[in-house]
Amino acid sequence: MEHPRKAFGWAARDSSGILFPFNFSRRETGENDVTFKVLYCGICHSDLHMVKNEWGNTTYPLVPGHEIVGIVTEVGSKVEKFKVGDKVGVGCMVQSCRKCQSCTDNLENYCPQMVLTYGANNIDGTITYGGYSNFMVADQHFVIRIPDALPLDAAAPLLCAGITVYSPIMYFGLNKPGLHLGVVGLGGLGHMAVKFGKAFGMKVTVISTSPAKKNEAIQHLGSDSFLLSTDQHQMKGAMGTLDGIIDTVSAVHPLVPLLGLLKSHGKIVMVGAPEKPLELPVFPLIMGRKLVAGSCIGGIQETQEMIDFAATHGVKPDIEVIPMDYVNTAMERLLKADVKYRFVIDIGNTLNPTS
Amino acid sequence: MEHPRKAFGWAARDSSGILFPFNFSRRETGENDVTFKVLYCGICHSDLHMVKNEWGNTTYPLVPGHEIVGIVTEVGSKVEKFKVGDKVGVGCMVQSCRKCQSCTDNLENYCPQMVLTYGANNIDGTITYGGYSNFMVADQHFVIRIPDALPLDAAAPLLCAGITVYSPIMYFGLNKPGLHLGVVGLGGLGHMAVKFGKAFGMKVTVISTSPAKKNEAIQHLGSDSFLLSTDQHQMKGAMGTLDGIIDTVSAVHPLVPLLGLLKSHGKIVMVGAPEKPLELPVFPLIMGRKLVAGSCIGGIQETQEMIDFAATHGVKPDIEVIPMDYVNTAMERLLKADVKYRFVIDIGNTLNPTS
Repeated sequence: MEHPRKAFGWAARDSSGILFPFNFSRRETGENDVTFKVLYCGICHSDLHMVKNEWGNTTYPLVPGHEIVGIVTEVGSKVEKFKVGDKVGVGCMVQSCRKCQSCTDNLENYCPQMVLTYGANNIDGTITYGGYSNFMVADQHFVIRIPDALPLDAAAPLLCAGITVYSPIMYFGLNKPGLHLGVVGLGGLGHMAVKFGKAFGMKVTVISTSPAKKNEAIQHLGSDSFLLSTDQHQMKGAMGTLDGIIDTVSAVHPLVPLLGLLKSHGKIVMVGAPEKPLELPVFPLIMGRKLVAGSCIGGIQETQEMIDFAATHGVKPDIEVIPMDYVNTAMERLLKADVKYRFVIDIGNTLNPTS
Repeated sequence: MEHPRKAFGWAARDSSGILFPFNFSRRETGENDVTFKVLYCGICHSDLHMVKNEWGNTTYPLVPGHEIVGIVTEVGSKVEKFKVGDKVGVGCMVQSCRKCQSCTDNLENYCPQMVLTYGANNIDGTITYGGYSNFMVADQHFVIRIPDALPLDAAAPLLCAGITVYSPIMYFGLNKPGLHLGVVGLGGLGHMAVKFGKAFGMKVTVISTSPAKKNEAIQHLGSDSFLLSTDQHQMKGAMGTLDGIIDTVSAVHPLVPLLGLLKSHGKIVMVGAPEKPLELPVFPLIMGRKLVAGSCIGGIQETQEMIDFAATHGVKPDIEVIPMDYVNTAMERLLKADVKYRFVIDIGNTLNPTS
């Protein structure tokens, strides 16, 4: 199904995952829609999974990108929240049913009919295309205002990586000064968890299999301490010290050592999704009333709160800004975790119309 | 080490688990102690594990029993809460450090130095002996008052089975009228979870592998519905309907179907402890912000609250009262789950002194 407005971007055509320039179309600005010129778009690790169809649900051509910021160029007749020239963003979702309990509770991210920003069936029957593209059209409800205090390029990754760690820290009551937060894995999500943890006044410990991350975690990101998870002595010495853990690792890994690091009543929240089940030992759960939970991005209201909090407290991801035609190289580097800590594509200056 | 006061009861001498009459000793009533004649003692499934050394930490001779009720016969000089003639009980623990964060928070059950009622090293260096015995001596802090409205025999299992399910229902916020509680396994713990759930005004669904339990769950215990966990059709039809699950099953079992039964933000609380790890799929946790937790009995203050609530709301376990010399047969029947739903030993009338 063709929309009336021509758009262009970069798309993957098959499971090689290689991205090419791509012409497509978007809908006209509806009465509740906000249309904006895309200036920056972050590269999320899930973009990499999706372009290669690693979750088995990709439809091609696929225009990825769900950490999208830009400037409003047009608004629908019923839009009161935004006007032309506003700095805005769109994260992982562009629609939901707006009626269910989750939607009523401002948890659109858990709505069974939530529509992902790209590669999903929208309510009009068309496929959604993401932010590796020249402009976006989205229902105003799913548009986030970007405060002036945040640089637009650095704001982009907050829309997925930021809210993904912020939301569980809030929901599970870990945003309290003096509490001790563990962060497992120091990638795009992990480094944001460190920054939000510190902004909340928490003690933050990074837990990683990589000794090279120690300096990075402490000197550069300001975490209070570092645990090498392969060092039994270190891990033993830190048993029972953490109030909560944000676990960003999407490879299969043992939970037993992490449960051991928790105090009684401590909480592990998984935001990375290993494909195979993890082994869950029940005795340590019972003996310390501990819990293992999952969390998936956040609702729109909370995303706005997170962005506003980030602006007020100077919480910004560390990014490497790249031109559009570097995206395939960036994907290769991302696969090797060779980025500190998020690639952001300079769409506004480097995305050229296809011929 | 011998104590000054002669006591008698029944003990297991080795991992055959067979119990025999046994003479031992207890301490004099200390200034903070309450001494009481034991009238009834419940048989908990963990008694069965312990007499057979199935957890590998049993010291013999072992006098089991941690669902103990009776009548106060003597109190120490500093005891103000209790007097001779009071109806009292002791549950799973008889001492803790009284200083740590858990103890300060009235969560003595999570104190690292908590002393179990039997088979544990007490702070005076002696081994603790449980309630399959003629009298108990315990620090007043760990003694529960049994309200007049509760029959003493039925009160006994509340001290372990009751608090074990009551505490997580409270802590995880499931005690709300209209919420829908799942109960996995219909034994001593499970049937109490049904009764407390109904007393809280919840909708309760029992989930079991045994079709024979359907009538029992609905007709006899008053649960609202029943799911046969082996029936895919039934399970599928109930997906996304439960706010929380109390899982009492201590055999290894799949979590995937249970996670599927939960609504978003739903909670599974394990109170049975499978010896081997369970498989934890992470995607369903993340997609619905679900959690899997454990919970271990409850603190003393909460145990008193639970007993008072049970008395007010007529929550009573279904029991089969047995004489002391039936205990080995009862253990065999318990192993086959052949009891509705808790054996309670009539210690007061049937425990005869050994020669």
